[in-house]
Amino acid sequence: MFEEAEADPSLAKKIFDRRELRLRTALLNAQYSLLSRADRTLLVVIAGIAGSGKGDAVNLMNAWMDPRHIHTLAFDTPSPAQSQYPPFWRYWNALTAKGRIGIVFGSWYVPLLKEAARKRPDADFIEREAERIRRLEATLSANGVQIVKLWYHMSAQAQCARTQALLSSPETAWKVMPEDLKVPKQFERLRNAGLAAIERTDMPAAPWTVVPAADTPLRHLRTAQILLAALRRQQAPRPARAQAAAGKSTRRIRDRLGEVDYEALVDKNDYEIELGLLQGRLARATRSPRFHKDHSLVLVFEGQDAAGKGGAIRRVTHALDARQFEITPVSAPNSDDLAHPYLWRFWRHVPRPGRIAIFDRSWYGRVLVERVEGYAAPSDWRRAYGEINDFEAQLADKGAIVLKFWLAVTQDVQLARFKEREHSPFKNFKITPDDWRNRKRWNDYARAANEMLARTDTPAAPWNLISANDKRYARLQVLRQIVHAIETRL
Amino acid sequence: MFEEAEADPSLAKKIFDRRELRLRTALLNAQYSLLSRADRTLLVVIAGIAGSGKGDAVNLMNAWMDPRHIHTLAFDTPSPAQSQYPPFWRYWNALTAKGRIGIVFGSWYVPLLKEAARKRPDADFIEREAERIRRLEATLSANGVQIVKLWYHMSAQAQCARTQALLSSPETAWKVMPEDLKVPKQFERLRNAGLAAIERTDMPAAPWTVVPAADTPLRHLRTAQILLAALRRQQAPRPARAQAAAGKSTRRIRDRLGEVDYEALVDKNDYEIELGLLQGRLARATRSPRFHKDHSLVLVFEGQDAAGKGGAIRRVTHALDARQFEITPVSAPNSDDLAHPYLWRFWRHVPRPGRIAIFDRSWYGRVLVERVEGYAAPSDWRRAYGEINDFEAQLADKGAIVLKFWLAVTQDVQLARFKEREHSPFKNFKITPDDWRNRKRWNDYARAANEMLARTDTPAAPWNLISANDKRYARLQVLRQIVHAIETRL
Repeated sequence: MFEEAEADPSLAKKIFDRRELRLRTALLNAQYSLLSRADRTLLVVIAGIAGSGKGDAVNLMNAWMDPRHIHTLAFDTPSPAQSQYPPFWRYWNALTAKGRIGIVFGSWYVPLLKEAARKRPDADFIEREAERIRRLEATLSANGVQIVKLWYHMSAQAQCARTQALLSSPETAWKVMPEDLKVPKQFERLRNAGLAAIERTDMPAAPWTVVPAADTPLRHLRTAQILLAALRRQQAPRPARAQAAAGKSTRRIRDRLGEVDYEALVDKNDYEIELGLLQGRLARATRSPRFHKDHSLVLVFEGQDAAGKGGAIRRVTHALDARQFEITPVSAPNSDDLAHPYLWRFWRHVPRPGRIAIFDRSWYGRVLVERVEGYAAPSDWRRAYGEINDFEAQLADKGAIVLKFWLAVTQDVQLARFKEREHSPFKNFKITPDDWRNRKRWNDYARAANEMLARTDTPAAPWNLISANDKRYARLQVLRQIVHAIETRL
Repeated sequence: MFEEAEADPSLAKKIFDRRELRLRTALLNAQYSLLSRADRTLLVVIAGIAGSGKGDAVNLMNAWMDPRHIHTLAFDTPSPAQSQYPPFWRYWNALTAKGRIGIVFGSWYVPLLKEAARKRPDADFIEREAERIRRLEATLSANGVQIVKLWYHMSAQAQCARTQALLSSPETAWKVMPEDLKVPKQFERLRNAGLAAIERTDMPAAPWTVVPAADTPLRHLRTAQILLAALRRQQAPRPARAQAAAGKSTRRIRDRLGEVDYEALVDKNDYEIELGLLQGRLARATRSPRFHKDHSLVLVFEGQDAAGKGGAIRRVTHALDARQFEITPVSAPNSDDLAHPYLWRFWRHVPRPGRIAIFDRSWYGRVLVERVEGYAAPSDWRRAYGEINDFEAQLADKGAIVLKFWLAVTQDVQLARFKEREHSPFKNFKITPDDWRNRKRWNDYARAANEMLARTDTPAAPWNLISANDKRYARLQVLRQIVHAIETRL
């Protein structure tokens, strides 16, 4: 893996100079071509031995291409504020939009590399981190983010010589960072840490390339060549597609929507009393110091049109402090959303401890409306079950209580509610031609919902199927589930 | 001010019920009309005596209008992460987009109200806060954000009675918050604090209305009526317009661009040595613990096309840690930018301590390209000088070192660089028909730049006029000014 780089090969400056003009022009054209198509992001992950010229390489990319369309993402140790969120939250939030090039410094490899460079590395930690990274990169790459990873490397002697040369003059001495000086003593460990990371995360969808870094012309040439090849690749490889397309479709899906007791109802007087009491318990639980310290709440509301999602959400929020929650109504993605992987817009609303995020429709649109209406290719929505489970598991790992509600009504009740809405001057905004159109595809939506329930009902983020023909019953059930889930955890 | 509210007037439920249908329908239509025109934001600031039904009022707005287009902004005590920024940063960041309604809870009035409710309030603090608020609201309102402020109020007896009624049943007792219970003892002080805030900040552009809150039907009716009147107002009042339009235009502006020594240059060898030394000083200064604790750096680069902004910026960033800085290239605003006051997009890039924000073009576009090309009305760009000075003063108040550079070239040098760019295969992306068009308006841009220099060269955020016919000279000058400014402050 490191043989070539540790031989410290070099390139005559003359040869480099002769190729520079053509290479720069080609890179710039390839960059503009990416920009004009805007069909993907190119993410360049920069890693390697300290003091091997990584910074120089980034400067080169910015000097040779149009820097207005290059986005440098440099991550330091997470701040206390960032540590309140799942570890990958900050990477998702900073994700470069399609058409642009992102250069990632201090990436998601840092924890793995640090651990692997210790005297007695924790093997379990390394495997766990590697698995997380593989999932992150697979999700990104399957969703329009092309990933290229560069490891800058040279021999221990060359690293030491380079550092000493910089130190010998006051004009360049400041370029040497404290960690550069530690490399000679720790070279073996740092090298093996790199090897451990590369071996565990080198995938067709996100390949590693080792760049010999001792000689500046060669380092520049290789960097530029790798970038050019990546920019010219027509589309990011999507290995997940073939895998997802195979099998599974024949498996019989349980008709959970058909098993709901649609007759369930509650008396009006009982409702008022019970509602107040449940809201009181919810208010107390969400005001508790324990909740504010260790937990957040993620509530997902899905269901047929006119199933009563809005009314159920309001009964929840009336019990909450307005400073504590955020409702995210989810409709068709805007241009910013479309310029990123579909989970990006939801990552931005992930709550920190003590906060409550309510989604009125959600990321499940991917496997419901996008599937039924054909907005997502079969390989995309099939892959989404796993991506969604992984996303929710990351939230739960960080202490989020994730609850998902499907409010279920029957066709006749929906029809009655549609008609009522049409005739009410202050409810008719709630009904659109889309609603009538979706209604015609009732069975397709039911099939998609049943498959979603089968594939994403996980212990970390369970689905609650709520009978909603009676609105009062549904509202109490939703509150009961939430109260029960929080009280159990506190 | 509070006479009516403290008489605790009421409204028969029957009368309210008769008007409800018409009011709800009218509100909903007015909301959709705002949404379809998207010419402004309606911001509703909610304040008042604790336990006076403010939360109920917000629930009413969400129930009566389409909640998908209402944005509740609820601010708590600033978190440690938020405290690193100027106090108004979080309000700017959360600002509701045009076409939507924002409801603001725990607003910018909290510090003033808290101080005014103390036993011995600090009068200076109150005046200072009031002045800041007036400026914020004037800027917002002049830039498309209509502000309506509601103070919910009732007599001390009614507040006490309402709290006791809620406490008397377990279904409602949880609605009582700890601060509600403190009101009876502190009523006079809370009342006077409200009076102090209202008297100092009641402006035509952002008026206060006191809502009698003891009786629910009346509270609901008044809330709905105020909202409806606000939504129906054709355009937010813009008092700053008339004021800014008067006078000033006859004042002679100093021709600072004409005073630059365009012959200044530096020898290539001297340049290389000096560059390394200055970069070293910059690297050391920005790595210092003092800088990371107390200061940030805001660098603004403006100048004629082809004056060498990009090259100067690169010489600065090469000395910096990639995790420490962000370059924001500013071009035409996108649709999100246009849906907010023009300063909004820049507030989002304000740095926290230890960070460096570099603007390649900036908010000065308002008084340069937008003025010259007529994208902004004269009243808008004239008012902008004051708004910009206020913005930069807020950054400086929080420890930011704000430096602004105008890179000045002569017409002949610009022409030579344009031609060179056209003939270079990897530089021709830098030249567009716009550049040639702008060149024809050289004198208009020079006049705008001179006026900008005259009106926004403040001690808190000085302009540095840099002779840039010789690129090396300009780069060294930029670095020298930055190094000098930081070293002086550390």
